[in-house]
Amino acid sequence: MLTNDELDRIHVVLVAARNPLNIGAAARAMSNFGFLRLRVVNRYNVAFREARSAVGAPELLQNAEECASVADAVGDCSLGVGTTAVGSRQVEHPVHRLEAGGQLIREHVADGGRVALLFGSEKRGLSNDDLSYCHWLMRIPTREEHISMNLGQAVTVCLYELIREERPPALASAPVQATGAELERMARALLEALHASGYTKPGTEAATEEKARRLIHRMQLDSRDAEMWTGMLAKMQLKPRRKNQP
Amino acid sequence: MLTNDELDRIHVVLVAARNPLNIGAAARAMSNFGFLRLRVVNRYNVAFREARSAVGAPELLQNAEECASVADAVGDCSLGVGTTAVGSRQVEHPVHRLEAGGQLIREHVADGGRVALLFGSEKRGLSNDDLSYCHWLMRIPTREEHISMNLGQAVTVCLYELIREERPPALASAPVQATGAELERMARALLEALHASGYTKPGTEAATEEKARRLIHRMQLDSRDAEMWTGMLAKMQLKPRRKNQP
Repeated sequence: MLTNDELDRIHVVLVAARNPLNIGAAARAMSNFGFLRLRVVNRYNVAFREARSAVGAPELLQNAEECASVADAVGDCSLGVGTTAVGSRQVEHPVHRLEAGGQLIREHVADGGRVALLFGSEKRGLSNDDLSYCHWLMRIPTREEHISMNLGQAVTVCLYELIREERPPALASAPVQATGAELERMARALLEALHASGYTKPGTEAATEEKARRLIHRMQLDSRDAEMWTGMLAKMQLKPRRKNQP
Repeated sequence: MLTNDELDRIHVVLVAARNPLNIGAAARAMSNFGFLRLRVVNRYNVAFREARSAVGAPELLQNAEECASVADAVGDCSLGVGTTAVGSRQVEHPVHRLEAGGQLIREHVADGGRVALLFGSEKRGLSNDDLSYCHWLMRIPTREEHISMNLGQAVTVCLYELIREERPPALASAPVQATGAELERMARALLEALHASGYTKPGTEAATEEKARRLIHRMQLDSRDAEMWTGMLAKMQLKPRRKNQP
């Protein structure tokens, strides 16, 4: 997990993005995942601060830095990483798949480094000149038949890779599995309901009991659901014949 | 890595999406990552086939299935997974973080199962009724301060998690590291250039040679770059004093 200090040393750099909606989408994903340092190298003078799709990220856009050049945007960074849709045909730089590149970036900021993560324009991506400021490139593993990603979505995927956890902690909302005693109460309620309804034929009680108990154990119930079943079955046992009454 | 057969058994289900741009964005991400099975449960009669931001994914939208209800959309699936921005306060279902949920989905399709991955509307997400068709929920790990993601970006991140590889293969474009002999040729060229330029003081030749060789080895050059350096240094050695001439 990235610390706040590490998040603070990762700059997302949008180079020549033309569509304010995409800048807004990038800002929103940054805010979702905790990356608050946006730099915009904007040769086209797009009014990026007005990017309106940045729901909930106006502050991030207010604090974005406008840079005159890529050299400017990477000047204080000890690692420059270019993102690209291109696969093996581009051989001017080492290219890492996102999974591996993300690991290298995490290691770099853990060692105290500062990173610039560059994204190019919607139409052309990063130019060779832009890439010459990068130490290596990172490729999102899209399929050959449809390589090119939307800019906002590309930013989203890269940032997610940086914050994802190999072994996420179990969430507090995971329900507690039912205990043997709770399952047994449910099994008793089920068997009594089956007996009262005439489902259980004389002489087959033992086989039915085994079948029912296996059925219940296969359900992998949590405590709450076992209790709900027990309550419903207890009711059925009391009034097994009344379902067709008005 | 998911096989084509496994990809084919994962359905993205958009429930009540209102914005055609978001449907298009979802379709584009699906196409990028190889998921071609879109289902749209569309209570609002949005003309989803016209979603125009789906650059390169028109066929996917043509083949999308319109479903009358969530029950319809999950009917042939053995696992229904709801996506949610909500954390631990929603306790009606087990909730897995995306990293863990992705693993469960991969295991389910590897076992031959068919999965419906549900996304709710932009404003409200999935309703409790929608969620009642799900076996469990998956949460994208956004930060507390800005939990809610854009629909297209949420789809993108979930699908990326499904196709990402723990140990991605090295890309073919990774350059070949320079051999010892190549580095030694470069070291000789550097030393000769230093000597010719007067950088090396008499009596310090051995120390300079060591320093230069360590410098070169720290650079971790590939073959091509070592060769380029060797060529440039060889030139400098021939004309060390001419840089200020007109």
